[in-house]
Amino acid sequence: MWAVKVPVNIHGGGIPHSSTTKNGCNNFFIVRKSLVKMCSTKRQSFQLTPIKSQIEPLPIMVNGCTGKMGRAVLEASISAGLQPVSLCFSGPEDAGKTVEAGGKEITVHGPSDRENILSSVFEEHPNLIVVDYTVPAAVNDNAELYSKVGVPFVMGTTGGDREKLYKTVADSKVYAVISPQMGKQVVAFLAAMEIMAEQFPGAFSGYSLQVMESHQASKLDTSGTAKAVISCFEKLGVSFNMDEVQLIRDPVQQVEMVGVPEEYLLGHAFHMYHLTSPDGTVSFEFQHNVCGRSIYAEGTVDAILFLAKKVKLKEEKRIYDMIDVLREGNMR
Amino acid sequence: MWAVKVPVNIHGGGIPHSSTTKNGCNNFFIVRKSLVKMCSTKRQSFQLTPIKSQIEPLPIMVNGCTGKMGRAVLEASISAGLQPVSLCFSGPEDAGKTVEAGGKEITVHGPSDRENILSSVFEEHPNLIVVDYTVPAAVNDNAELYSKVGVPFVMGTTGGDREKLYKTVADSKVYAVISPQMGKQVVAFLAAMEIMAEQFPGAFSGYSLQVMESHQASKLDTSGTAKAVISCFEKLGVSFNMDEVQLIRDPVQQVEMVGVPEEYLLGHAFHMYHLTSPDGTVSFEFQHNVCGRSIYAEGTVDAILFLAKKVKLKEEKRIYDMIDVLREGNMR
Repeated sequence: MWAVKVPVNIHGGGIPHSSTTKNGCNNFFIVRKSLVKMCSTKRQSFQLTPIKSQIEPLPIMVNGCTGKMGRAVLEASISAGLQPVSLCFSGPEDAGKTVEAGGKEITVHGPSDRENILSSVFEEHPNLIVVDYTVPAAVNDNAELYSKVGVPFVMGTTGGDREKLYKTVADSKVYAVISPQMGKQVVAFLAAMEIMAEQFPGAFSGYSLQVMESHQASKLDTSGTAKAVISCFEKLGVSFNMDEVQLIRDPVQQVEMVGVPEEYLLGHAFHMYHLTSPDGTVSFEFQHNVCGRSIYAEGTVDAILFLAKKVKLKEEKRIYDMIDVLREGNMR
Repeated sequence: MWAVKVPVNIHGGGIPHSSTTKNGCNNFFIVRKSLVKMCSTKRQSFQLTPIKSQIEPLPIMVNGCTGKMGRAVLEASISAGLQPVSLCFSGPEDAGKTVEAGGKEITVHGPSDRENILSSVFEEHPNLIVVDYTVPAAVNDNAELYSKVGVPFVMGTTGGDREKLYKTVADSKVYAVISPQMGKQVVAFLAAMEIMAEQFPGAFSGYSLQVMESHQASKLDTSGTAKAVISCFEKLGVSFNMDEVQLIRDPVQQVEMVGVPEEYLLGHAFHMYHLTSPDGTVSFEFQHNVCGRSIYAEGTVDAILFLAKKVKLKEEKRIYDMIDVLREGNMR
């Protein structure tokens, strides 16, 4: 259906295939080129369809909705049939602004009188779920506010004092999903790697590892996910120095070498791990490549639906993470 | 250390990068080409080193040592410091032949008087482990022989009546590792996929899947490993029809399109699974690519070492598989 039907040199020819066959390494790179074409077609035929009918009306409040991630969550939530209330909180610089999403206007409130406002909204919408995509400096204050009012929340904001965050939530017994990584599929992949490493220590003993990751130029440090996956490979018996991670931050390289679509140069997370056996006859490769924020916004919607269910069932456990959301299975 | 140092068009240029950037798909194919070069270098610097000092002298008998897999196991075992006895069993057509491996001559015995011969060898070498890489038609008879004599064995031969095989071994209480797939790392990968599918059902809901596998032209059916991995993806929420697996069996395509090294056209197992999110912004890729028999031979050595340990410890559990071997961790 795909590779075979595409002439080998459809992408410009002149590729010296002989260079790929005179060693013990394995690669699908020529096929990959036809894959790219195929994905382009698939993309048109697999659009997300609204699934409103399956989900009860569920009011949400997305704090930080003036930011890119907050807006993405708003849009994904509306597509999924969730119902944003007409206001949200954000920093003082955004107070009084209006955000429009899905034909709905949301008024942005600054830091003043937040407790009264949130209490009123919660009273009006007793099954409200708050979503937080604000800034690291606001994480603890916001968690305290939600905990004091007793409104369940999904915290996607990174940073802040995490220990304090969990203590606040635990003490208040409010329901919450807390995760700095909302990309469900990435979390699932990492969890699978962690399980493999734990259950089969040394299974890849002697293998050599190459890691490459590409992120927007503004990201200075090595990807945390890459570090976590590498530590799994280390448990699997692979010797690797974190300095050996190939960081791609140059937009020209990202486009020409890595194949990042130009429109995602300012927001992408590509990761590749390539393992080779000591004698070069075996290779494994794992890739997780994310463009934009859609995966995180969709994962956040899943976290909201998950949390609403837990609140409704009055579950004893109150604090959850994305592994819990994943374990629940697909809910829409 | 690698990709960046390779000029983008070192492999012939003329690649229309623009075609890869006008869609939401993610790919590393240009980097991959430099990976190929790099692997070629790595291969020379990572040779298996003998590790005799770590392993006690352990006598083994490799039945089916006239076959390619039997010979590969003999060679890997000798490299690992194991000590093949001077005879083995094989089919009547090989009776009387001599096999040389690692400077040692092994006389091949046909079907006659096997019980007496095996009993004598076992008496002389009480910590003997038998390895079986014969033919499907011999699986049950051989297992009965080993069970009757009471010698522990590693059964790598596929086929036969598997239910009967397990019953024979269970009734005799002989120690055995039985696995039709001895490639430890492939088993680990599949196990990780199975765990992910079981724990996170529906995590990849809505994703589309493309699968390609390349094997020697003589293999007519779809790879069993591919089928097993696909069934995991189905549990993860991916809709896929087994007919959609792209089987590559044409040697020209294997070399030019898939990148199989020419010397491995008669024995390789390349697998690629590519997942794309509904909106095309996220992709995952998993590959496991095996050339030749080294991975299976090395896994068999691990199974032998594992079994010898279990016999020595007089473990209550007697029948093991490669998952058990993997759980034990790296033993050399």
